[in-house]
Amino acid sequence: MTFSYNQLFTFTEAVFRSIGCPEDDATLATETLLSADLRGIDSHGVARLVGYVRLWEAGRINPTPRVGVTYETPSTAVVDGDGGLGLVVGPKAMRVAIEKARQVGTGWVSVKNSNHFGIAGYHAMLALAHDMIGVAMTNASPLVAPTHSLDRLLGTNPIAVAVPAGEQPDFVADLATTTAANGKLEIAQRKQLPVPEGWVQNADGSASTDANAVKNGGALLPLGGATGSHKGYALGAVVDIFSAVLSGANYGPWVPPFVAFLQPPTDPVGQGLGHFFGAMRVDAFRPADEFKAHMDNWITTFRNAHAIEGRKVLIPGDPEREMAAVRLLDGIPLLDAVIKDLEGVGQKFGVKL
Amino acid sequence: MTFSYNQLFTFTEAVFRSIGCPEDDATLATETLLSADLRGIDSHGVARLVGYVRLWEAGRINPTPRVGVTYETPSTAVVDGDGGLGLVVGPKAMRVAIEKARQVGTGWVSVKNSNHFGIAGYHAMLALAHDMIGVAMTNASPLVAPTHSLDRLLGTNPIAVAVPAGEQPDFVADLATTTAANGKLEIAQRKQLPVPEGWVQNADGSASTDANAVKNGGALLPLGGATGSHKGYALGAVVDIFSAVLSGANYGPWVPPFVAFLQPPTDPVGQGLGHFFGAMRVDAFRPADEFKAHMDNWITTFRNAHAIEGRKVLIPGDPEREMAAVRLLDGIPLLDAVIKDLEGVGQKFGVKL
Repeated sequence: MTFSYNQLFTFTEAVFRSIGCPEDDATLATETLLSADLRGIDSHGVARLVGYVRLWEAGRINPTPRVGVTYETPSTAVVDGDGGLGLVVGPKAMRVAIEKARQVGTGWVSVKNSNHFGIAGYHAMLALAHDMIGVAMTNASPLVAPTHSLDRLLGTNPIAVAVPAGEQPDFVADLATTTAANGKLEIAQRKQLPVPEGWVQNADGSASTDANAVKNGGALLPLGGATGSHKGYALGAVVDIFSAVLSGANYGPWVPPFVAFLQPPTDPVGQGLGHFFGAMRVDAFRPADEFKAHMDNWITTFRNAHAIEGRKVLIPGDPEREMAAVRLLDGIPLLDAVIKDLEGVGQKFGVKL
Repeated sequence: MTFSYNQLFTFTEAVFRSIGCPEDDATLATETLLSADLRGIDSHGVARLVGYVRLWEAGRINPTPRVGVTYETPSTAVVDGDGGLGLVVGPKAMRVAIEKARQVGTGWVSVKNSNHFGIAGYHAMLALAHDMIGVAMTNASPLVAPTHSLDRLLGTNPIAVAVPAGEQPDFVADLATTTAANGKLEIAQRKQLPVPEGWVQNADGSASTDANAVKNGGALLPLGGATGSHKGYALGAVVDIFSAVLSGANYGPWVPPFVAFLQPPTDPVGQGLGHFFGAMRVDAFRPADEFKAHMDNWITTFRNAHAIEGRKVLIPGDPEREMAAVRLLDGIPLLDAVIKDLEGVGQKFGVKL
């Protein structure tokens, strides 16, 4: 079944209002969350609304956070999310990065005391309208085993980089530092299909193609999987350090779980989970029109490369942008299970889907 | 056969002096180059000295570059390498980044008109002594096919991030954005062994385990290889854009080849090849001792994780640091072919190995 963006927007905004978010925050959180549905990252969109509500019910989300800078230099800041929705804290912290970039060329903001922020790409893209390169990362609940580890110590820790172009659509890379996102695993579980080698390991660390491996004490594998997970491990580690060791959030196994039925560790090493944002004015390096003309050339060169029979070379961000255009027109399809969840949340607050 | 670090240092320095490098530059280039041999990245060390000499003979390296800032803001700069050795241009550009970080918290430097700079990790590590996080990347000769591409449009484009710790050794991630570095392929070629799936593709884009595939018109694959090369492609693309589109260097297929027998493209889109450097003062985010105490906790937590039978969980940088300690004491082993090359270079300039 398919829902228009506006319909989902009105519903989601009303739910965020119902848990006590001020109007502006509810609007912002909705825009952030639904950017995932528009762009086809269904696992991170409105399907997670129930999850946020449950965290609020468990007292683990502050609907009226006072998000503010606690430490800064001309090009850096630490932002305290005050336990708010990452969906709200993220864009506010990104604004700080953009303002600093306006002043001194670049701005870099590490965030503590936040929560899951939706898709990294949304935050990075906020820089584009300012002719800036945007960077966004976040740590996340520990589901990933570093190379050779049996313990799960890292999240899927995504990295997003958005680069403005001229006449071409912008370049938007957004990638988990694991071989496969957890959402893809859940799909395989539902369909009772095996997963490719390199996605997961069993509880004893052996290679696995079992979609239920993570549920059964195994772990997701860092990017590179079977042929060199040490690189994905290193990238995921950098995301964890930039997001949490710099800011004073929880890192590694101390990152609080997204699901409300799992309790956060009782011995936290910081506050909430952490993000890291960056903004770089392109004209802090060369005139913006010159930069954009070369980005256009970069993009068309790669897009026009000779491709494998029946395939084409894509620019990072192409599939998500095309999906967003389609879904704005045709609506956003939701799985029955998701609709049922949303209806349940709606009933709780007297909001109709 | 094994050579002491000092012996190789004296020899290499004399060779760089012989091609016209001023004394300080020759020393700096030698230190940069040999950091690869010490750390066990044999493909990027003294084995490449002949390659640099050949580029100089072909008139493609300026031994007396005037390396300088051509564009800047308080937190950014573009550095023109003036066609010099990347081994010299890199550390000089990194100094600019460090100086800017001292002033405004972070410094970000994009470099044009440079050449191959050795290992990325060396440059990133220059920040450590200043209690800064160091970042280094570079683009490189196009040997890598983006996902679905038959054309080789990217280099192995490494990313290095060095993070200072307190009592623990520093964290140093240094990774090519390909599944395997070209050096590993060369080793398999020499031993006439197949390579794992996901390293390379054939000229028609089909999966291959042939170590000679790249030589025969195929390509290296981005990190993720068989199970999702789009992520490595996106990362390699970001490195290319930060290193060259920001600075005005050549990008994508226009990056000049390292080997002197291949001519650079006759229609350059910029100058030389490009690098990107960053330095972030950790005390631009929180007090340095607090940061380092948490890095120590991060490192010991990961190092002490339960590991797969017979393995241990390593911290990025562990193997290279341990190798450097061994090789400083026991010397650096060189292959016969490398020794012969070096003796040839030595004879040319009247320098004894």
